[in-house]
Amino acid sequence: MKRRGILFIISAPSGSGKTTLCNRLVESIEGLYRSISMTTRPPRTGERDGMDYIFIEKQEFLKRQKRKEFLEWANVFGEYYGTPKKYISHMLNKGSDVLLSIDVQGAMKIKRLHMEACYIFILPPSMKMLKERLMNRSTDTSKAIRERLRIAKKELSYCHKYDYVLINNRIESALDGLRAIITAERHRIWRNRDVIHAFGKNI
Amino acid sequence: MKRRGILFIISAPSGSGKTTLCNRLVESIEGLYRSISMTTRPPRTGERDGMDYIFIEKQEFLKRQKRKEFLEWANVFGEYYGTPKKYISHMLNKGSDVLLSIDVQGAMKIKRLHMEACYIFILPPSMKMLKERLMNRSTDTSKAIRERLRIAKKELSYCHKYDYVLINNRIESALDGLRAIITAERHRIWRNRDVIHAFGKNI
Repeated sequence: MKRRGILFIISAPSGSGKTTLCNRLVESIEGLYRSISMTTRPPRTGERDGMDYIFIEKQEFLKRQKRKEFLEWANVFGEYYGTPKKYISHMLNKGSDVLLSIDVQGAMKIKRLHMEACYIFILPPSMKMLKERLMNRSTDTSKAIRERLRIAKKELSYCHKYDYVLINNRIESALDGLRAIITAERHRIWRNRDVIHAFGKNI
Repeated sequence: MKRRGILFIISAPSGSGKTTLCNRLVESIEGLYRSISMTTRPPRTGERDGMDYIFIEKQEFLKRQKRKEFLEWANVFGEYYGTPKKYISHMLNKGSDVLLSIDVQGAMKIKRLHMEACYIFILPPSMKMLKERLMNRSTDTSKAIRERLRIAKKELSYCHKYDYVLINNRIESALDGLRAIITAERHRIWRNRDVIHAFGKNI
């Protein structure tokens, strides 16, 4: 019997380098798949439908929301974001692990569902670095940057609700840390009861 | 402020390849040190005093035992074995992690002390392989082998008291698993409160 998959939930203040980390992570770990969120906001340059997000119409989103197809959803400045339930439960049931990259608010909504999951928080190297990264995004105005910093501070106060914390100092060492967490969680005793049981029978 | 070190407790039925794994592990991980047990039994060929065990006289052992210098101790077929308390607490206090390789009975004694520690159980690839490994040890009689197998079965029944389980199929993959567990545990949120606190202050 194959063990049930593990749901890994990763949050980080924007500017922590989370997207790059998550992409590199699923590329380098076998049996780990990204959960892709649905959104009604238009794609940004370089974003691919079905890869970065599933881009859908507002009407379509609301229909799915009504059918309770989302694990959690949010309305951010008029645009909807949702985590599809079906894909995640399908993958977990067949024993695959799922990586869900989501903001703190979304993660806390999932936590309240008491779903078994492993929560990882990624910190930027320093607050100074976070400011710099946000300022280098030409898309943001200085008001938007201040707002993002305010949100980052708020998000940080939820850090203790997570299981693990990682500082994204150097991408390679942050990746090593993430890989280690995923490998370790796969070895947790209560996830391997069947292995132990099968072993014991052969004594 | 440096975090307190983590105590890693590793148990395995004899013949699981635990000694080799532990030696390779401390060689390859920075900040991880082996706790060396004291024993009154004579050294086996190749065993080095102060490396594999600290070999002491029975009288000396009993004196230390009386002074409560052992975290746990046991009398196995008339020979004493003990885990020195001072070294472990010294290392943990200065922020170093400690690896303690110990039998299931010893591990359970430490567990009853409610010391904060991470418990790892190593399984041999299969029961068949364990029998073969024990039979290839020319030192053991067939009666001794049967006795070791009986103990292995008993030990296995305590497996669920541990935090992690690893199968020593191939030494390299078992080592990767152990390294991952150690790295992951270092990233546990409650062990990094100071880091998070310091980070939050700089916002």
